[in-house]
Amino acid sequence: MFLGKVVGTLVSTQKEASLDGLKFLVVRRLTAENEEESGYVVAADAVGAGLDEVVMVATGSSARQTKFTDKRPCDAVVMAIVDSWEVSGEEKYRK
Amino acid sequence: MFLGKVVGTLVSTQKEASLDGLKFLVVRRLTAENEEESGYVVAADAVGAGLDEVVMVATGSSARQTKFTDKRPCDAVVMAIVDSWEVSGEEKYRK
Amino acid sequence: MFLGKVVGTLVSTQKEASLDGLKFLVVRRLTAENEEESGYVVAADAVGAGLDEVVMVATGSSARQTKFTDKRPCDAVVMAIVDSWEVSGEEKYRK
Amino acid sequence: MFLGKVVGTLVSTQKEASLDGLKFLVVRRLTAENEEESGYVVAADAVGAGLDEVVMVATGSSARQTKFTDKRPCDAVVMAIVDSWEVSGEEKYRK
Amino acid sequence: MFLGKVVGTLVSTQKEASLDGLKFLVVRRLTAENEEESGYVVAADAVGAGLDEVVMVATGSSARQTKFTDKRPCDAVVMAIVDSWEVSGEEKYRK
Repeated sequence: MFLGKVVGTLVSTQKEASLDGLKFLVVRRLTAENEEESGYVVAADAVGAGLDEVVMVATGSSARQTKFTDKRPCDAVVMAIVDSWEVSGEEKYRK
Repeated sequence: MFLGKVVGTLVSTQKEASLDGLKFLVVRRLTAENEEESGYVVAADAVGAGLDEVVMVATGSSARQTKFTDKRPCDAVVMAIVDSWEVSGEEKYRK
Repeated sequence: MFLGKVVGTLVSTQKEASLDGLKFLVVRRLTAENEEESGYVVAADAVGAGLDEVVMVATGSSARQTKFTDKRPCDAVVMAIVDSWEVSGEEKYRK
Repeated sequence: MFLGKVVGTLVSTQKEASLDGLKFLVVRRLTAENEEESGYVVAADAVGAGLDEVVMVATGSSARQTKFTDKRPCDAVVMAIVDSWEVSGEEKYRK
Repeated sequence: MFLGKVVGTLVSTQKEASLDGLKFLVVRRLTAENEEESGYVVAADAVGAGLDEVVMVATGSSARQTKFTDKRPCDAVVMAIVDSWEVSGEEKYRK
């Protein structure tokens, strides 16, 4: 999984039918030091994440292992909201 | 998923039999700020996307989770046409 | 999928038994503008592609969705020979 | 698989239900010469790895092939603690 | 698949139980011109490859399609020893 920050939302009405009801989030990648990178992903939301929240994203077939994304053409999912993490004994983020 | 712009089409007559009837689109990658990148993918079309349309692309095994791509050797699918998205409260694209 | 040019062949006699009979091609990646890149992949051939032919390659589990590659340890397959493609209304390649 | 060093831990209370009980580790990538890279991954722990330990990480659907991660939205797992490795006859790491 | 050279071995005693008996190889990536790159992967051995041997590596779920790796948390496998390959009519490697 990688760490990301929810920076936006996306609206799509014309889409594969099985995707109805899914909420799509624009998630910016974060370094392990909690700095925003230019990379991003659009991920389905499985945990009710809000704007500016720091989250974990799972990709690939693992992104389909939630009730929201099962058997859907979805390759990225926000599967956890992060409370905190530390690196080398130093706290890099706390909610 | 990543955001992309449909910039072209591709024709192939000699191909794996199960791919008959699929429409292949050349999709240029977009940044979260809606700028075209040099990267691209050729994706099967599952939503009737047209030229210059901004779309979402799912890759990997998730690309096979549509009736058009099920059990086919296809690793990228246009599974949604984008209406709009915003980043940091700013609209980056509207159809 | 990505676009590639078949630039070579590969011979292997000591290999996983299920791979017997598969033909392995060295495929150079092409940009959407039809320029050769340094990146390459070794892909199984599912369509009888020849040297110098421009092809599409599918990777990952999707590469196993052909009768030649089903249930085999193969992560890339040439699944189509390209007739032509265009980008922004300009033809980039014609066979 | 790639080699990594466990540099931190991550706490998440609001997450996909199936992830309850999983321990999440922040793993820094190592080169084959045992130098830390900037790249990282957050991986589930399947072997009881501790801080500063050198480990192997499997990603993608392979990350779900443990009893801890089976059918869970988890795309990276620490599946081995490394005792030692060598490159070109030179030992690069010993526990 | 990509081409690689077996440059080392790795020992791990504390690992996911299903991995017992697997041999782990450190494989350096090769360009299509047979030059070593800095990139590497740790792969399970399915063909009895030795040090300095040139091999093909399959990754992702395809790495699990051998009797050695089936249902194991393993995302890379050496599935062939290379005899020779050529690019643009020029032999780049012969065993």
